[in-house]
Amino acid sequence: MSEKIYIGVDVGGTTIKVGICDAEGHLLHTFEGPTGTGKGTDVILHNIANYAREIVKESPFEWEQVEGVGVGIAGFLDIPRGFVKFSANLYIENTDLRGFLEQELQKPIKVNNDANVAALGEAWAGAGKGIDNCVCYTLGTGVGGGIIIGGRIVEGFASMAGELGHAAIVPDLEAIQCGCGKMGCLETVSSATGIIRMAKDAVERGDRTTLSSLEVITAKDVVDAAKVGDEVAARIVSRAAFYLGKSMATLAILLNPQYFIIGGGVSKAGDFLFDQIREVFEKYTLEQAKEGVKIVPATLGNNAGIVGAAGLILRG
Amino acid sequence: MSEKIYIGVDVGGTTIKVGICDAEGHLLHTFEGPTGTGKGTDVILHNIANYAREIVKESPFEWEQVEGVGVGIAGFLDIPRGFVKFSANLYIENTDLRGFLEQELQKPIKVNNDANVAALGEAWAGAGKGIDNCVCYTLGTGVGGGIIIGGRIVEGFASMAGELGHAAIVPDLEAIQCGCGKMGCLETVSSATGIIRMAKDAVERGDRTTLSSLEVITAKDVVDAAKVGDEVAARIVSRAAFYLGKSMATLAILLNPQYFIIGGGVSKAGDFLFDQIREVFEKYTLEQAKEGVKIVPATLGNNAGIVGAAGLILRG
Repeated sequence: MSEKIYIGVDVGGTTIKVGICDAEGHLLHTFEGPTGTGKGTDVILHNIANYAREIVKESPFEWEQVEGVGVGIAGFLDIPRGFVKFSANLYIENTDLRGFLEQELQKPIKVNNDANVAALGEAWAGAGKGIDNCVCYTLGTGVGGGIIIGGRIVEGFASMAGELGHAAIVPDLEAIQCGCGKMGCLETVSSATGIIRMAKDAVERGDRTTLSSLEVITAKDVVDAAKVGDEVAARIVSRAAFYLGKSMATLAILLNPQYFIIGGGVSKAGDFLFDQIREVFEKYTLEQAKEGVKIVPATLGNNAGIVGAAGLILRG
Repeated sequence: MSEKIYIGVDVGGTTIKVGICDAEGHLLHTFEGPTGTGKGTDVILHNIANYAREIVKESPFEWEQVEGVGVGIAGFLDIPRGFVKFSANLYIENTDLRGFLEQELQKPIKVNNDANVAALGEAWAGAGKGIDNCVCYTLGTGVGGGIIIGGRIVEGFASMAGELGHAAIVPDLEAIQCGCGKMGCLETVSSATGIIRMAKDAVERGDRTTLSSLEVITAKDVVDAAKVGDEVAARIVSRAAFYLGKSMATLAILLNPQYFIIGGGVSKAGDFLFDQIREVFEKYTLEQAKEGVKIVPATLGNNAGIVGAAGLILRG
């Protein structure tokens, strides 16, 4: 067996997921173990290295076949140097992640942030397979994003590109403050957290909605209520969709990608959500910039991170 | 003399400007002649080819030194094919510009749109020299734009990227229709045309302004009045600056370029305009995405087009 393999590591706050991919991005083997958050930076770094060795041991592959190890991690990075400036959910700062792993594993190492990596996964081997230019949104607790041009992640001057969720898109009069400190970010209306906040506000205001009978409101509850005709819930989902569509209209005229790919929990709302986004996109986008452009759901689910991390070796 | 040279052609509605550059983007020789608009596509195409030959003849260089000819042209293009789908001010449509010039000149040919080419000129050899990631605005009759990532123009899937002037940025309630048909484009407020429109509206509304004494109002008149304390004029310039700053804040979080470069007639307003843009940018941009980022004036003036067109051969 002399096939080249690529290891992708997705470092989450609780779990580190590892995958082995071939050169086309097919996921051949997976492994996971605890991150060790709270036990100090050293423990997390050694876990990453150990799990990378472990997955190869328990797979039918040999260490010699490993072309490199890619790592996706949440936080502020210096991407070209593979350096973690600050990761809030891992309590890591000023850490030379690439240097450590190069030393430990003696393989080429690439590091990028989790949202960029998920975008690369979808672009390389998921919904955007074969599509060189795409923009990916991950609608979860926040709105993650990644921009792929010419098959590669746009990193930006200070590794800050692709933060789609923090583009100020809600007009000042309606804007609320985002977790990032700025006003009117896309994330404040189109993330699960944003949807839940709007629902709670509506219930507190006394709006007539079935949501007011729930003890805990989830984004799925809001979508489900909207689907069966709850007008308040429908208005909330429409608002989330409106600003996603507006964001895509702006990106269409700035970058003119071929695909917009939407993943994350909120995207499971399906065509009910997608059709509203498409309608807004259609309305706000210049004719020539929407020709042939598609808005599609992500296909890799939770594996986008490990596949994309593996892809960093070929495309990073 | 065996130095390699690069020819850049800037095809305007009235004049075709041609330049010879060296490999560093120094402009070594220029030439210009009438475009021949209105005399048919053939005349324009032959003029481009003839002027490219002519400039070399009257220069100290030999045709053998020419590494290629780049052409910047206004209109909707298929950039990879060098094909002009439609150019409104030249009355050209469905024309294989690259094919024609390859045949006539027997040199590598690259074609791109005028705004992208001006951006490349500034990025390659002007205000952005040595800076790999920058976004350029040209504030003239419209708002032209070009995005440079990794030293190269972002073209987009259907050659529609970089249309900064047509990003919908003015909130719906205050938006007016743009020439492109869409509402609230940056161009409606931050171009010379936009500034003049806002001034005329103010005069018609009866606002107290020195502009009301003018028979014809130019953008320069509005800027000059604002500089000497005319409040109505100042409000108009602030509005133009506000949406430019907001546009840059959005781009900072999407692409995180190192430089924003502003050229075109309106940019001559200087620090009076730039300081207001910087203030808005500062306010609306995430801390990490503005670190080390600069907003600077273009330096090549009207030569950006020919320098950038020459640059297409090396960077296109």
